[in-house]
Amino acid sequence: MKHFGITVGDPCGIGPEITLKALHAHPEYQDQAILFGTLSVLEKYNRDLGYGFVFHLLKQGETPQKGVVNVVDPFPCDFSEITVGKVSALGGKIAFLSVKAAIDAALAETITSVVTAPLNKEALHLAGYDYAGHTEIFGAFAHGPSYAMLLWSDQLKVIHVSTHVSLRKACDLCTKARVEEVISLAHETLRKVGYDKPRIAVAGLNPHAGENGIFGDEEIKEIIPAIKASIEKGMDVQGPIPPDTVFLKGLQGNYDIIVAMYHDQGHIPLKILAFDSGVNITVGLDVIRTSVDHGTAFDIAGKLIANEASLLEAIKVGKKL
Amino acid sequence: MKHFGITVGDPCGIGPEITLKALHAHPEYQDQAILFGTLSVLEKYNRDLGYGFVFHLLKQGETPQKGVVNVVDPFPCDFSEITVGKVSALGGKIAFLSVKAAIDAALAETITSVVTAPLNKEALHLAGYDYAGHTEIFGAFAHGPSYAMLLWSDQLKVIHVSTHVSLRKACDLCTKARVEEVISLAHETLRKVGYDKPRIAVAGLNPHAGENGIFGDEEIKEIIPAIKASIEKGMDVQGPIPPDTVFLKGLQGNYDIIVAMYHDQGHIPLKILAFDSGVNITVGLDVIRTSVDHGTAFDIAGKLIANEASLLEAIKVGKKL
Repeated sequence: MKHFGITVGDPCGIGPEITLKALHAHPEYQDQAILFGTLSVLEKYNRDLGYGFVFHLLKQGETPQKGVVNVVDPFPCDFSEITVGKVSALGGKIAFLSVKAAIDAALAETITSVVTAPLNKEALHLAGYDYAGHTEIFGAFAHGPSYAMLLWSDQLKVIHVSTHVSLRKACDLCTKARVEEVISLAHETLRKVGYDKPRIAVAGLNPHAGENGIFGDEEIKEIIPAIKASIEKGMDVQGPIPPDTVFLKGLQGNYDIIVAMYHDQGHIPLKILAFDSGVNITVGLDVIRTSVDHGTAFDIAGKLIANEASLLEAIKVGKKL
Repeated sequence: MKHFGITVGDPCGIGPEITLKALHAHPEYQDQAILFGTLSVLEKYNRDLGYGFVFHLLKQGETPQKGVVNVVDPFPCDFSEITVGKVSALGGKIAFLSVKAAIDAALAETITSVVTAPLNKEALHLAGYDYAGHTEIFGAFAHGPSYAMLLWSDQLKVIHVSTHVSLRKACDLCTKARVEEVISLAHETLRKVGYDKPRIAVAGLNPHAGENGIFGDEEIKEIIPAIKASIEKGMDVQGPIPPDTVFLKGLQGNYDIIVAMYHDQGHIPLKILAFDSGVNITVGLDVIRTSVDHGTAFDIAGKLIANEASLLEAIKVGKKL
């Protein structure tokens, strides 16, 4: 049986804690998962949580062992070097190297998919890695002709035409080619998890979807042509729909997925609904990646009160894909 | 006692129906309100709803009568000319002239404030009036040095730096001067309704509020200076806060009002929460104007099933201001 990977994320955040809590909640994952993170940190939380997991440090090329938790440690260090609850270059370095090691393992087909616990962008930059986040690291190393960020919850699924760019740049990225590409990614992803003909709604870029060109013409020049081309390919696509109504309609069950034109258009509705089980997926790459929808939560790191629900959901969705 | 005005909106929509339902639910408003709309349409709904209101057609300069519903009819016509449930130039014309008459009455101090039932933008344009909506009509005729659209609900209040413009134009309008102006409008409006020192949160323009300039610099160049200047004037202002978290924090009670940078940034969270009692307020003009937060609902016009809750809330908030 193939394993899936879990990157433990920034060792100074809640990543190591929620990873062990997830394995504890679902003991069957112990034999299915390979962890990518610092062994000394996992051992510390294992003691603090009283779980009694036995870890096995996996060497390059070695077959994972049964009945233990297999760990790849890309940058071994002592727990005393870790500043729990604080941004640090070491935390950023370990987080990056763990993700990189997991991507390499996935490309080598040692693991089928990667589930990522949170890392911290500032720590990443302190360590000299100029990525905006997981999505961009996977974009850089996990190949694939095109990719997009998909926020997944049972109630609402949203895929983004652009993510970590300025709002002005997001307007520039709203092109027919990119919108068409993201509609296809939405279609393919939902097909993989069992939707026969996913109902896709496309949001406008401008207020009221431009009101027939009165407030911006991206709908007319870029979005409508992309929708028409996608319908001609046989997909079920509606839009452009005014951004301030499309998400409520989606929540009411009118669509299976919504194509958002920029980061906040998709993130604002999902975050205000505060679902417990949001999952962040990078789709379109050679490596399947799902992730929690929250951050490193440095303020509660080390307190053993972090919630593993989102990580469990990310594992569940990752296994489906 | 001074009266307040209610514009009945597009006669082909649900405006006339919800106006009469509101007066029926609160009979005390009968002696306080002056309606601006087509008498024949009001008479028709009065019969259909079985309310038995007695209408008095108010002439220019005439004092409102007691015990009846006083009506200003700016463009008298027969009900048979009205195409219920359909966009029409006549509907747009009546809607516009009603609003204009109400603004004139407010400027002449015949009424204290104006509550607006919905009009339809397409009908407005068919009639030759090139306004994006009520906000822009009031902006054009009700004077005032500056104005802004405020969406009001008990749970969340949001004021907008820009509204009916393209997203690219919204980026251009995110200037220090305008942000500072809107912060002041938020402060003054909440002071009027009894907040001693309103807690104001300002959203960023870009994802993650620009992440220290990595995704756009409007936060650094425009928004932060505006916040600093407002704090120096003695206001309680925080931000810029990432757009995808500020609304959830507001909903949790951390702020009294949120300054949104563009139409959809503020409208998406309010609409997805689907509050029953949203009110749209134009603040900063010489005329106080509150409005329902929904449209003409042509699909249910004439069916007597429209809900007057939002109009009642708009009347309540208008009276407070």
